Amino acid sequence: MKLLSFRNARGHRSYGIRTERGIVDLGSRLGERYPSLRALLAAPGGIELARQHEQAAPDCQESQISFLPVIEHPNKIFCVGMNYAAKRQEFNETNPAPTLFVRFPDSQTGHRRPVIKPAHSREFDYEGELAVVIGTGGRGIRREDALQHVAGYACYMDGSARDWQHTWFTAGKNWRETGAFGPWMVTSDEIGDPQQLQLRTFLNGMQVQDDTTANMIHPVAALIEYISTFSALSPGDVIITGSPGGVGKKRVPPLFMKAGDTIEVEISGIGRLFNVIADEVIEPIEDLQVSEAVEAAAA
Amino acid sequence: MKLLSFRNARGHRSYGIRTERGIVDLGSRLGERYPSLRALLAAPGGIELARQHEQAAPDCQESQISFLPVIEHPNKIFCVGMNYAAKRQEFNETNPAPTLFVRFPDSQTGHRRPVIKPAHSREFDYEGELAVVIGTGGRGIRREDALQHVAGYACYMDGSARDWQHTWFTAGKNWRETGAFGPWMVTSDEIGDPQQLQLRTFLNGMQVQDDTTANMIHPVAALIEYISTFSALSPGDVIITGSPGGVGKKRVPPLFMKAGDTIEVEISGIGRLFNVIADEVIEPIEDLQVSEAVEAAAA
Repeated sequence: MKLLSFRNARGHRSYGIRTERGIVDLGSRLGERYPSLRALLAAPGGIELARQHEQAAPDCQESQISFLPVIEHPNKIFCVGMNYAAKRQEFNETNPAPTLFVRFPDSQTGHRRPVIKPAHSREFDYEGELAVVIGTGGRGIRREDALQHVAGYACYMDGSARDWQHTWFTAGKNWRETGAFGPWMVTSDEIGDPQQLQLRTFLNGMQVQDDTTANMIHPVAALIEYISTFSALSPGDVIITGSPGGVGKKRVPPLFMKAGDTIEVEISGIGRLFNVIADEVIEPIEDLQVSEAVEAAAA
Repeated sequence: MKLLSFRNARGHRSYGIRTERGIVDLGSRLGERYPSLRALLAAPGGIELARQHEQAAPDCQESQISFLPVIEHPNKIFCVGMNYAAKRQEFNETNPAPTLFVRFPDSQTGHRRPVIKPAHSREFDYEGELAVVIGTGGRGIRREDALQHVAGYACYMDGSARDWQHTWFTAGKNWRETGAFGPWMVTSDEIGDPQQLQLRTFLNGMQVQDDTTANMIHPVAALIEYISTFSALSPGDVIITGSPGGVGKKRVPPLFMKAGDTIEVEISGIGRLFNVIADEVIEPIEDLQVSEAVEAAAA
């Protein structure tokens, strides 16, 4: 089952199931009790509840919605750096512990939405990645139980301002709308082994990354064990598992993204995430304050 | 004015003003409209609204409440590493950009609450720091305007599992209840220049850190400018501005915290944050899931 978050034709936030026939709107059916996909995942049996509507007549088509990040406001987004052998070689990384940094939710965007190239970066790079969405939370989760805590998997394009990244990553990875997350998550029952997926990234249609998740240094189950040792995971949390080699920064000459470029991340069994790069337009501070006060009041 | 978050004698969350006479409970007066201190800060004129109640008869005494982190659920918590010359020397840090990492809200605790030494760490270290609480959000804030965006200042004890820290900090800084934040925030009108504060840390009553915020490499205004360049700030966000030299990891022999130790961070004009170190008790996973599902549903 493919679960997604979206804005409908009237601009209202919802979530649903992507079927071959169209989108089944779950928000209109379950939204009063579970206002977001994250809230549904947090409900015991939430995915099974969704599945009861899988055969319903579709409410709309993909062309009528605007995709949101699969989980729009995760409680925690952990990102793993240097998790493929080729990438570690490119960046001379030798530390054996998982390299972990954090994205804030406002750094995300959805399928077919613009990915914003920061005005202050001259090195805006692509990274195609497998995203893991937590279904059942926990602390101290053992590796052998870890995959039972996964609700599903999605594609992620971890847009990175290399000239702001440093060894601690925070400033390079948190520009708004630089992390594309979608198009949907495929529930874990349909994926089987997350370490047997083919991952490819295409810049302007040209393949720039091609690897298999079998080449992860720290597989998904090990990442869940490691992270949950020091920080509790909860439903809707996201782990972005790192990018293979072939990123633009380490090419000769370097290959960075600019406005108008298309960037796509395709993972076997999941789908193909598509975004166009757009230049950043700095908003007046006043507008931002109003919208954030409204959001905070609603939270 | 000193603003704080707390649980009252019945265990209910509230927030209020700490006066010489006792605690004025603002949650009981304004809580319907502003359910948390963060929500009050997000309201235009929120601090002035609080001030109207400053002379009210106190509702309770400090001994009757349990302190919460000053802001219990900030949208974003940015932490600055290596921001004092002595600390940079201790850790051989030479990169000129601010070292930034992230804490999640569940890594925090309040004044007089236990700080939990992770069972998996043998190097649990103290860091006394000045915390900045954002009042007015924004993006692209200029250095010369930055201090107008600050609601107030507090003490922070950034408890650090050094053996999990690495160059990206995430795993060393996110163990639950390792970051003490309090006792209250002092509104910025009473602080004047945040670069003229004396900061001292005491382990079991012995002074282990002593510096002035004048020795910050990146002063508060510069940090706000830098951070808001890549990530929008909003009311209630927290910037923890880094620790002076003298941490336990770099002493000969090293000096780490263990259960029963007291740790105190005192900043002139703000107050003295007090905590006792306690050993971690790992909860059964089942209990955690239930409490998180409840929290997620309430969010």
